[in-house]
Amino acid sequence: MNNFEFKNPTKIIFGKDSIEKLSKEIPENAKVLLLYGGGSIKNNGIYKQVKTALENVTVIEFGGIPANPEYAVLMEALEVIKTENITYLLAVGGGSVIDGTKFLSAAALYEGHSPWNILTDNIRTEKGLPFGTVLTLPATGSEMNSGAVITRAETKEKLGMGGPGLFPEFSILDPQVITSIPERQLANGLTDAFTHVLEQYMTYPIGALLQDRFAESILQTLIEVAPRVLKDPTDYEAASNFMWSCTMALNGLIQKGVPTDWAVHAMGHELTALFGIDHARTLAVIAPSHYKYHFEAKKEKLAQYGERVWNITEGSTDDKAYAAIEKTEAFFHELGINTKLSEYTKDYEGTAETISQRFTERGWLGLGEHKNLTPDKVEKIVKMAY
Amino acid sequence: MNNFEFKNPTKIIFGKDSIEKLSKEIPENAKVLLLYGGGSIKNNGIYKQVKTALENVTVIEFGGIPANPEYAVLMEALEVIKTENITYLLAVGGGSVIDGTKFLSAAALYEGHSPWNILTDNIRTEKGLPFGTVLTLPATGSEMNSGAVITRAETKEKLGMGGPGLFPEFSILDPQVITSIPERQLANGLTDAFTHVLEQYMTYPIGALLQDRFAESILQTLIEVAPRVLKDPTDYEAASNFMWSCTMALNGLIQKGVPTDWAVHAMGHELTALFGIDHARTLAVIAPSHYKYHFEAKKEKLAQYGERVWNITEGSTDDKAYAAIEKTEAFFHELGINTKLSEYTKDYEGTAETISQRFTERGWLGLGEHKNLTPDKVEKIVKMAY
Repeated sequence: MNNFEFKNPTKIIFGKDSIEKLSKEIPENAKVLLLYGGGSIKNNGIYKQVKTALENVTVIEFGGIPANPEYAVLMEALEVIKTENITYLLAVGGGSVIDGTKFLSAAALYEGHSPWNILTDNIRTEKGLPFGTVLTLPATGSEMNSGAVITRAETKEKLGMGGPGLFPEFSILDPQVITSIPERQLANGLTDAFTHVLEQYMTYPIGALLQDRFAESILQTLIEVAPRVLKDPTDYEAASNFMWSCTMALNGLIQKGVPTDWAVHAMGHELTALFGIDHARTLAVIAPSHYKYHFEAKKEKLAQYGERVWNITEGSTDDKAYAAIEKTEAFFHELGINTKLSEYTKDYEGTAETISQRFTERGWLGLGEHKNLTPDKVEKIVKMAY
Repeated sequence: MNNFEFKNPTKIIFGKDSIEKLSKEIPENAKVLLLYGGGSIKNNGIYKQVKTALENVTVIEFGGIPANPEYAVLMEALEVIKTENITYLLAVGGGSVIDGTKFLSAAALYEGHSPWNILTDNIRTEKGLPFGTVLTLPATGSEMNSGAVITRAETKEKLGMGGPGLFPEFSILDPQVITSIPERQLANGLTDAFTHVLEQYMTYPIGALLQDRFAESILQTLIEVAPRVLKDPTDYEAASNFMWSCTMALNGLIQKGVPTDWAVHAMGHELTALFGIDHARTLAVIAPSHYKYHFEAKKEKLAQYGERVWNITEGSTDDKAYAAIEKTEAFFHELGINTKLSEYTKDYEGTAETISQRFTERGWLGLGEHKNLTPDKVEKIVKMAY
């Protein structure tokens, strides 16, 4: 096990009808900017619940934050924060709205030349404008971590940011919200959380026995509840386990003391930036090829995952490892998620070279747990995913 | 799954040679009271490491906090805190020193008549004197939670306390400390952590699928590393998983959203108060009888535990459940832990009646996950444990 530090101060308020507890979490004299996305919260009742809970504080609204939170839109929100002297941010939405809010939390107190530099210069935010979240879509885990990914359409870029100042002060998780989520987004959420765990687990054995079992626990739970969530989003037992699994998948716990990969995300982000493919689906496209390409380096963990999560008991380590990749791909298919780039776009030719070139330009020469994912390997993996 | 709230702000600093990081965690102008136990830290090198890391702050020392932290001793430390205007507490020890420090953190700012009332009146501490810990004995999980248990020899009482103000600000966990721990205490630590998980798991199914799997993960890990820890405490892989398992067993995570029991602890505490039996050993004495007595109410979880943790695949639910209790008792025996009260004292006659009477006097009529553990049941369970 590697040395690690772990601190996660976010307060989780989880359960049925928990949105009404919002009023106790925001300081009485706060001036709140309520941030949301495309407006679905106005149709599913969440907006009304939030507004009712906030009736004793001053609230200004900023809607329209798109999936893959767009820098240009966020800069408009930043203007509102400054003009209106906002003191507290409240994200009501999924990962995109929460990630956008984290960017705003950082940018509101950033003193540099341009807030875009927070992303390009990897500036860690030690202190941001305080914020909380009401989660409307289980998937990214952003509600209990301090990271965010921001997109800039102008340059077709998608970059990460973070820092200890960017944990939500609280996050409200009411599993009942999933009853109004379209099946496509539920499948995305399941895939996203599943892949988050894989990124922190599918590396090489390092004797972190407990972390391995926790990671496997989340994968097992997601596999168990996935068909139930898709079949009947009103199944509260399935919904609550889905929601809590998504949060635990990326709140920092399972990555402590172990090597992590994150190369699937790095390549997947490019597919979103280039083609607008849903984030989770890009992960399902890249992951199987990535694991096949790095089979030798990852086969011990692949086999352990096959044994413990998929109950694959027959065959050699290689057999189990390979079968585990096939099981993973089949799981994505059962969720209705395609795993080949050509199923999403006809314009896939040249994508591998483009992404490889972008990695070269950014100087990304050493991603992955062995820090050896060079652009030529990226090119091969993306091609395998066509 | 039940509704829940979860917040755990303790910063964990985990790994080899992590004690040297202590200097960065304590405010520069702090006046520190360094609290420790019987003085073993002076022989195993930990005291020296701590003092070196603290050379730039003012430190006063208070040693001699006994196992089952004694109220009378703690009152002497409280006097030092007040006389010396201490601003920061540092516990260097196991659960007893850390629990004692939590009591002091609360008592230092308590404005009531007598600090003993914090325990007798169940006063929750919202804000305590800030403190950190350097863990020298993995077992209780006190390093990452906000609870404590204090003993008063004068009245043979052992009572709990807690509150959100009693999380350590940081805890330093260097698994290398276990190399100097006597085998008896290592066995206690393994038993303590194992039983902590059982108290939060061995109830009835409530559809908290992920919490169940996390609990099982800790049990599986403890079973896996226990023989290695006892055979060779320098086995770092085993030590680090043991240490992290103990912390995760009682940092709040696995109890969220599920019913919890804690009746084994309530009865076990009395055995410590009456006979001075090591805390962990009292749990091993009570648990098997408790599970046998409540077999019908707990058999579904017992069987699930048997299947997933002990790989018991044959037989009915009843068969698996019973076999799981036997496996648990055998596990304690393999650690060198006796599971009958008569193996600890010849004066066990009348103990059941005494403990039952104490429960009656305290008005404890409804412990356990069904809040139905009446004193007459306590009497029967303790008798079964003779």
